[in-house]
Amino acid sequence: MDVDAVNCMNYEQFLDVFGNIIEKCPIITAAVWSRRPFASFSEVEDKVYDFIESLPISGKEGILRCHPDLAGRELTSGTLTMESQQEQRQAGLTSLTTRERERLTLLNTQYKEKFGFPFVICAKRSDKDKIMEELNSRLQNDPSVEILKGIDEVKKICHLRLQDILRKGTPLPTKL
Amino acid sequence: MDVDAVNCMNYEQFLDVFGNIIEKCPIITAAVWSRRPFASFSEVEDKVYDFIESLPISGKEGILRCHPDLAGRELTSGTLTMESQQEQRQAGLTSLTTRERERLTLLNTQYKEKFGFPFVICAKRSDKDKIMEELNSRLQNDPSVEILKGIDEVKKICHLRLQDILRKGTPLPTKL
Repeated sequence: MDVDAVNCMNYEQFLDVFGNIIEKCPIITAAVWSRRPFASFSEVEDKVYDFIESLPISGKEGILRCHPDLAGRELTSGTLTMESQQEQRQAGLTSLTTRERERLTLLNTQYKEKFGFPFVICAKRSDKDKIMEELNSRLQNDPSVEILKGIDEVKKICHLRLQDILRKGTPLPTKL
Repeated sequence: MDVDAVNCMNYEQFLDVFGNIIEKCPIITAAVWSRRPFASFSEVEDKVYDFIESLPISGKEGILRCHPDLAGRELTSGTLTMESQQEQRQAGLTSLTTRERERLTLLNTQYKEKFGFPFVICAKRSDKDKIMEELNSRLQNDPSVEILKGIDEVKKICHLRLQDILRKGTPLPTKL
């Protein structure tokens, strides 16, 4: 897919393709359509990040809260978006031992109680051991640091989802 | 449901109940959770509107673009959110004649081509004849006027969805 094809899309086509590059936040993709024409594919990405940065802290927390827990209730119940499902599977989170799952659930719960949003990490660039280690370590952070950390991870996830669309030329099917 | 019950919710419970008060924009509900405790139920609503007003024009257009067409492809394919489905049914949009459906599709298309977002109206406070009349009339507006009109309708829809939750005490099941 090249940028000319992107610039020719109406907002519905743009949402069909890019609607879930930020998990369950199609409003961000939909807002960025207003910024076309894009000079390059990476300008789409820049505009997404500009929009995120323009949000107040509560809006950034809102983005994090739209993310599922890692190996949480949405993975178990099969209600993850297709993208999350693939990312969590790739990181080995669909094949945890009972002990690993219990440990992750405990850490997730502690994290959410402390920060009021879920632990977000770019699972595709990690694996279950690193995720557990990182969760344990980030749990010690100050809330103001952790919002920034979480949003950095949201951007990494977005980057990889965009790369995936660019490579495949077609979107992953998703439920929004 | 009283406001104390709302103030006791963690963000996941809050999203389960209020996640779709703005169509397909759970990020707004999720952001507003940061504003608790709420003095009253209507303060929840005020904070939602404050968040919407804080968004740049592109963000407001983004909200409108997350809304489905009236009697459009999502109604036909059964992929509307439960709330939209109920609202469109109540306005008589599930029982249009072929001629009415063709006329509405034509007007919707003209509207989207002119404004770059769909025609949004609080269907529950209307019926198919008024909707058609209003669509025809709003098609003549200037884009800057029409964004404000659309966002006003988004707020009316939000108000009725909140009233519904308040009355029933339980959320409508929804797919986000």
